[in-house]
Amino acid sequence: MQIRGEMLIGAQSATGTTAPVFAINPASGAQLQPGFAGDDGTRVRQACELAGQAFDDYRARPLEERARLLEAIANQILALGDALIERTMAETGLPRPRLEGERGRTVGQLRLFAAVVRAGDFVDARLDPALPERQPLPRADLRQRHIPLGPVAVFGASNFPLAFSVAGGDTASALAAGCPVVVKAHSAHPGTSELVGRAVQRAVAECGLPEGVFSLLFGSGNLVGSALVAHPAIKAVGFTGSRGGGTALMHIAANRPEPIPVYAEMSSINPVFLLPQALEARADAIAKGFVGSLTMGAGQFCTNPGLVIAVEGPALERFLATAAAELANAAGQTMLTPGIHNAYDQGVARLAGHPGVTELARGQGGGAPNQCRAGLYVTSAEAFLADTALHEEVFGSASLVIRCKSVAELGRIAERLEGQLTATLQLDEGDVAAARALLPVLERKAGRILCNGYPTGVEVCHAMVHGGPFPATSDSRSTSVGSAAIFRFLRPVCYQDLPAALLPAELQDDNPLGLRRLLDGRY
Amino acid sequence: MQIRGEMLIGAQSATGTTAPVFAINPASGAQLQPGFAGDDGTRVRQACELAGQAFDDYRARPLEERARLLEAIANQILALGDALIERTMAETGLPRPRLEGERGRTVGQLRLFAAVVRAGDFVDARLDPALPERQPLPRADLRQRHIPLGPVAVFGASNFPLAFSVAGGDTASALAAGCPVVVKAHSAHPGTSELVGRAVQRAVAECGLPEGVFSLLFGSGNLVGSALVAHPAIKAVGFTGSRGGGTALMHIAANRPEPIPVYAEMSSINPVFLLPQALEARADAIAKGFVGSLTMGAGQFCTNPGLVIAVEGPALERFLATAAAELANAAGQTMLTPGIHNAYDQGVARLAGHPGVTELARGQGGGAPNQCRAGLYVTSAEAFLADTALHEEVFGSASLVIRCKSVAELGRIAERLEGQLTATLQLDEGDVAAARALLPVLERKAGRILCNGYPTGVEVCHAMVHGGPFPATSDSRSTSVGSAAIFRFLRPVCYQDLPAALLPAELQDDNPLGLRRLLDGRY
Repeated sequence: MQIRGEMLIGAQSATGTTAPVFAINPASGAQLQPGFAGDDGTRVRQACELAGQAFDDYRARPLEERARLLEAIANQILALGDALIERTMAETGLPRPRLEGERGRTVGQLRLFAAVVRAGDFVDARLDPALPERQPLPRADLRQRHIPLGPVAVFGASNFPLAFSVAGGDTASALAAGCPVVVKAHSAHPGTSELVGRAVQRAVAECGLPEGVFSLLFGSGNLVGSALVAHPAIKAVGFTGSRGGGTALMHIAANRPEPIPVYAEMSSINPVFLLPQALEARADAIAKGFVGSLTMGAGQFCTNPGLVIAVEGPALERFLATAAAELANAAGQTMLTPGIHNAYDQGVARLAGHPGVTELARGQGGGAPNQCRAGLYVTSAEAFLADTALHEEVFGSASLVIRCKSVAELGRIAERLEGQLTATLQLDEGDVAAARALLPVLERKAGRILCNGYPTGVEVCHAMVHGGPFPATSDSRSTSVGSAAIFRFLRPVCYQDLPAALLPAELQDDNPLGLRRLLDGRY
Repeated sequence: MQIRGEMLIGAQSATGTTAPVFAINPASGAQLQPGFAGDDGTRVRQACELAGQAFDDYRARPLEERARLLEAIANQILALGDALIERTMAETGLPRPRLEGERGRTVGQLRLFAAVVRAGDFVDARLDPALPERQPLPRADLRQRHIPLGPVAVFGASNFPLAFSVAGGDTASALAAGCPVVVKAHSAHPGTSELVGRAVQRAVAECGLPEGVFSLLFGSGNLVGSALVAHPAIKAVGFTGSRGGGTALMHIAANRPEPIPVYAEMSSINPVFLLPQALEARADAIAKGFVGSLTMGAGQFCTNPGLVIAVEGPALERFLATAAAELANAAGQTMLTPGIHNAYDQGVARLAGHPGVTELARGQGGGAPNQCRAGLYVTSAEAFLADTALHEEVFGSASLVIRCKSVAELGRIAERLEGQLTATLQLDEGDVAAARALLPVLERKAGRILCNGYPTGVEVCHAMVHGGPFPATSDSRSTSVGSAAIFRFLRPVCYQDLPAALLPAELQDDNPLGLRRLLDGRY
């Protein structure tokens, strides 16, 4: 389980050729060994070609084999034991309980997708039998199933080193769909990536699957990622990261000779609407819950509540006073990387320096490197509507409160927001009419709408939507969390009058896989 | 039912401001009255704003009202009676039986989507109930449904003046999904478009729906189409037409401040593989069926068989001799527009002049204007693989036969093809092994695979896929024909801990709509 600073190209290991990059322990600033030399483009090609070669074999395997691969990956990750947790702590500054929880989530996701694969509903098998006697023209025998898109490029995320990186949600759902995966590791946690990558590599070998089902690449800068998305063997992209990074990949994908889908989860400020009755009844409790959500994990979540919208008045002032007091006591927390910490400090400085914005409170800073000092800011509806710079995400524990003049102004703010992952309503019974008026706007703006909770914490289940209109994601038609994530990597194929000997098992007359199928429009 | 040369902006009529365009009767070359002045951009904005305003109202209506709108449109189209057929004949040169059939298909599609809306399965309702006692953390109540994307821009197609134009498949599936529609009429059949547009407009009024649910725009050149796709209220695009037109719309959509999905059905040469045993056993019959498919409707179908691939030898020569004889007798047929006829003539001239290509036969020409003379050409595998110009679609009754040296070479050709709407296998029992080897390649290349038939004729049903990898379409994850086309215009939204009073009917505890729902992962 030694970390060697090597890429994984199918069953092989490979040392890169560009200047090695070292992970930094953000809690101390110390450099971690070994160095990770990046690829110069050669290994991208090899990995993509292997993935292309593996595709037809892998997708043709029985669903049971695919399910077993996902379970084998989960077991191999668990078998890494504490060495994985310790390396990830060192590379990310995240505390042990969080990472143990995230490992559980990662393993749980892999097992959920194993169950999804076994159930087989994602195939969406449809049969319209032949109608040879139909007038004026007979109908042919028509059968449809979904097949995988092809090899998928997955980009590791900085803020979920396990659950959204090498063997995270994108990889799990792509493998479940039948797609080989080529991962570009995030440079912030290369050792974690190598450990998990080797776990996946071992699982692929253990399951007797073609080596090209999985590869892992390193590379700082854009070269490796750009070459990966541009490679003709790659047929879809999964990404979690910044708006700039995501839109750059969208641009490359759209300008390929064969454009491909990109699932980029990028940028969201996750508005929280405090409706009047709820605010009146429990301003203090809401403020405490809000600050807890805002400061959890140094605010390094896609669903961090970066915007609060409420009608001005004594109840809002109580909320602000309590929130400011809570936040002022919030301990500093180590951020993931010096770069993220630097961007956070610049973001809060921009807010603090904005003429329409007042700083209400800052959290504790501590003396250690890369500490996130939480920040709470307040502005007016006019100022917010007048400057879209105030709509931009500040990644970390910073939030902006908008004082509105009326409930109607809440609606006008909602209407002007960009696409979001989430929108939250704090409401009491007396707020239902106001909430009902807001709901259609929020449905147009967000992938998940929640009441009397906080947006952080994304359940991995069947009904989850972790997605939303641009720029929250590049494609609002899907989710990157939950079982429905498998649909991102599938496309339908119709078979007309195929002889029984050629029909895939999913579509054979006697339904050997026992799938739920749509027969002449009925399940 | 007079044709006035007017656009339809919600409930209003509007005359354009640019120089009027006149439809041409391609059978005679005669100009048809009246002129259709195009929009200068003003009406695009009005139509899109009305569509945006109508969206929340229209999508909130009970599914039954949506279904009734689709049926009302079907009835209003039938009520146009023979005036519609006559105008469409004059504008397209298509014969009466074809257009009566196409009207039936159009009305049938609208009624199919009414049934799809009533069944409600497209909502894909999912409920994961709260688990308040779960350790270490409780689970919230999570419910998911699909909502419509927003107003959709639909571009009328030249080759299906009814079934893929103003009230065609894209419009029917978008309205079924709950999306208002703004149609850009095809300039080749503006009178047909106005007649059908007024039928839709009457249906919207009759159903008491907001006027912005439907608008119809005219405009030659790119101005109106570009402005339509670029308008912020538009959230998706449906298009059937040329590769150049489709990729231009993809580019505009990808470069908007908020990129949106484009469903463009563009370009396909629909390879037909003649496997050895089938060719040996029934070369003549296959040749006759092939020429029938090739010359149907002057070859003006997306699924026209433009490429035939077979192993050289006496059986293939018999096929070629019969096909050449059949094709030489094929009557000339009027093409849709002078522009399409001109492009066809240029396309066959390019084939005929290609050093690696031999002309085997030409069909009858006739003396009338805009006649399609069918063309049959033959080339070698080497020549085909060496020049991608030979992979390009020639829209009309032209087809290129590739003489291969072996069955393995069939596979190499298949592997080099671009994305296709269809791929066809002519096979007998002795060909099953060869077909099995080809099938994975064809699955990667095409949306529909058919055996012992011809690709023309696209059934409107549940299992149909009229789609495929680029450049067949811009998005292989969907179909533009059949009930599954509704999924193109939907996105999921998750509701977390919403009070019962705010839950949409699809997700309420007592399932008032009687929908099939996924409860904790089980149907």
